[in-house]
Amino acid sequence: MLSVTRRDEAWMGEALREAEGAAVAGEVPIGAVIVCDGSVVGRASNGRERWADPTAHAEIVAIRRAAAAFGRWQLDGTTLYSTVEPCVMCAGAIWHARIARVVYGATEPKTGAVHSHYELLSDGLLGRVVPSVGGCRADESAALLGRFFESRRRDARVAESGGLENR
Amino acid sequence: MLSVTRRDEAWMGEALREAEGAAVAGEVPIGAVIVCDGSVVGRASNGRERWADPTAHAEIVAIRRAAAAFGRWQLDGTTLYSTVEPCVMCAGAIWHARIARVVYGATEPKTGAVHSHYELLSDGLLGRVVPSVGGCRADESAALLGRFFESRRRDARVAESGGLENR
Repeated sequence: MLSVTRRDEAWMGEALREAEGAAVAGEVPIGAVIVCDGSVVGRASNGRERWADPTAHAEIVAIRRAAAAFGRWQLDGTTLYSTVEPCVMCAGAIWHARIARVVYGATEPKTGAVHSHYELLSDGLLGRVVPSVGGCRADESAALLGRFFESRRRDARVAESGGLENR
Repeated sequence: MLSVTRRDEAWMGEALREAEGAAVAGEVPIGAVIVCDGSVVGRASNGRERWADPTAHAEIVAIRRAAAAFGRWQLDGTTLYSTVEPCVMCAGAIWHARIARVVYGATEPKTGAVHSHYELLSDGLLGRVVPSVGGCRADESAALLGRFFESRRRDARVAESGGLENR
């Protein structure tokens, strides 16, 4: 594992801002940014529900936007920041895009594919390893997720008690 | 493993047609279709180069198109046909989209994530298993890939000998 730098923490702030945007839009609050040479080249919040797209995780959308900005699919030399540990799909996309380094926040014990459930970026089975580190501003990311799911549970209780139409 | 039916072989013909379209466009010839209740609800050929998008594998694009057609991210009840064994990214997307069954053609020993390199859809680590079977019209799929790469090698030799500008 690499270590998290002050600069990483600052860029993670941008990813956290994207995650907050997802929450406002009623989406699970996860955000991602891709940084190259000190600039953000792609940023996104999770958009699965509003775009009705199962692939619209923050990391995938940020990768597609960075590739569109570059005009090429190779994102060599970039760092991806995600507020939550990437899943299998996103780890695969990170690998395909040749992203140089991954920094994430909260651990995802159910579907995390970087260190938790699988170690897709570091087990060497794909032939190229992508350096990655977790735990960057993890408390803030986990707090955002906690508030979001608590609010969803509250809404469900209100709906159950007849206070609101079931959503 | 499930077994391949005559109907599967017929639908794979549609995926092979998509793969041929990719080759004509200068892309690695891989195609995918998603079928629900006897109809194709999403189809695509690999478009990584022409769309400059590292996520534009045939399976991902077909999934996004099927979700757009359905107006929802859940593709329950569908079968995905791919001419080649899905990679980590595509296996993850198949899982997220709740696709019911996967049928593929040629095995992909380098990056295959369904049976070759990983068994992401059947190892149970993600909590839900997606039934999958390979080898459906695998020879035709492998022949398409073989012709494509042979033609690329020939072009490279012509370029090396000064006959064509290096591409």
